[in-house]
Amino acid sequence: MPKPSNKAEFVAAGMRVMFRQGYHGTAIRDVVAEGRVPQGSFTNHFGSKEAFAEEVLNQFFEQTKAIVAQALGDRSLSPRQRLLRYLDLITASLAADDYLRGCLIGDFSIEISQTSEHLRERLVAIYREWLRPFEDCIAEGQKAGEIDDRFTPQDLADFLLTSWEGAILRMKVAQLQEPLERFKKIAFATIFAKGT
Amino acid sequence: MPKPSNKAEFVAAGMRVMFRQGYHGTAIRDVVAEGRVPQGSFTNHFGSKEAFAEEVLNQFFEQTKAIVAQALGDRSLSPRQRLLRYLDLITASLAADDYLRGCLIGDFSIEISQTSEHLRERLVAIYREWLRPFEDCIAEGQKAGEIDDRFTPQDLADFLLTSWEGAILRMKVAQLQEPLERFKKIAFATIFAKGT
Repeated sequence: MPKPSNKAEFVAAGMRVMFRQGYHGTAIRDVVAEGRVPQGSFTNHFGSKEAFAEEVLNQFFEQTKAIVAQALGDRSLSPRQRLLRYLDLITASLAADDYLRGCLIGDFSIEISQTSEHLRERLVAIYREWLRPFEDCIAEGQKAGEIDDRFTPQDLADFLLTSWEGAILRMKVAQLQEPLERFKKIAFATIFAKGT
Repeated sequence: MPKPSNKAEFVAAGMRVMFRQGYHGTAIRDVVAEGRVPQGSFTNHFGSKEAFAEEVLNQFFEQTKAIVAQALGDRSLSPRQRLLRYLDLITASLAADDYLRGCLIGDFSIEISQTSEHLRERLVAIYREWLRPFEDCIAEGQKAGEIDDRFTPQDLADFLLTSWEGAILRMKVAQLQEPLERFKKIAFATIFAKGT
């Protein structure tokens, strides 16, 4: 009988530890302690810390994509409302952790872009996939006259998610929701509210 | 005769290493190797890695404040032009490093907010001091009719520097200047260009 895999437990524990301590601050023994999984089986599942971090990042991105689908797929909302819904859902998920968690995509963008070319390339691909539904939603909002149409949907989608990463970064320092609410208030009364 | 202090060499070497490897990824032996300074004298100058990182952060903030003074103190420019000048000067300083460096204030915001309460509190104070001249400049720009006046100067200054941190984070992944230019293009045609 094959032994039950504890790969998922490793990834879940790794995500919790990396939210707290970052990539470089995380040792495999921390993950083992967090997940109460045998250290020996780590190497059965993951060839290196870099490969492990990629699995953790992929898992985080899957969770993010589920929130994207929930918000941007809600056809009862206007395109502009769908964008705001996404930021509100992320805000709620961060609030549940007392504003301590943050976004692993943003964390890794800062931490590993200079130290792992492999993970940096994975992040480039993640941003590409993450941005696409936002570009479509923004194009629809521009056609509906809801969003400033002097910029391409590509530029506005990247501006939106990138500035939002800045707001999350600021939240981590302040340990308050304020930077997230400030971003939404300003962006959705200006760029993402044409003609106001 | 007192021995010449090599404290400044430690701090300069520490900044170079921390730009590359982050706070958690930096070991004191890396700083010693980078600066070609004797390991033994590290403990003479710094009580801990945390205390050392605070000196590095303070030094980086001094450099940042010099750029703030250069841009926001230029009375030949309008308030809006002064804000843009600041971002252009930062862009040029980042370009000089092939877009690999980034902003140590942003890096530390991501990396240490959850692991060092002392450094997080220092970051809170740094943001407060960093923001003040931007608030004054934005208030002046609002009076001159150059900047959207539906928001407080405090909100707009925090939005500006925080979203800019997001653009730098994105630059680190892309290793291109594009996210910085995109941010300036959109922000200075909308929020920071009233009535356009």
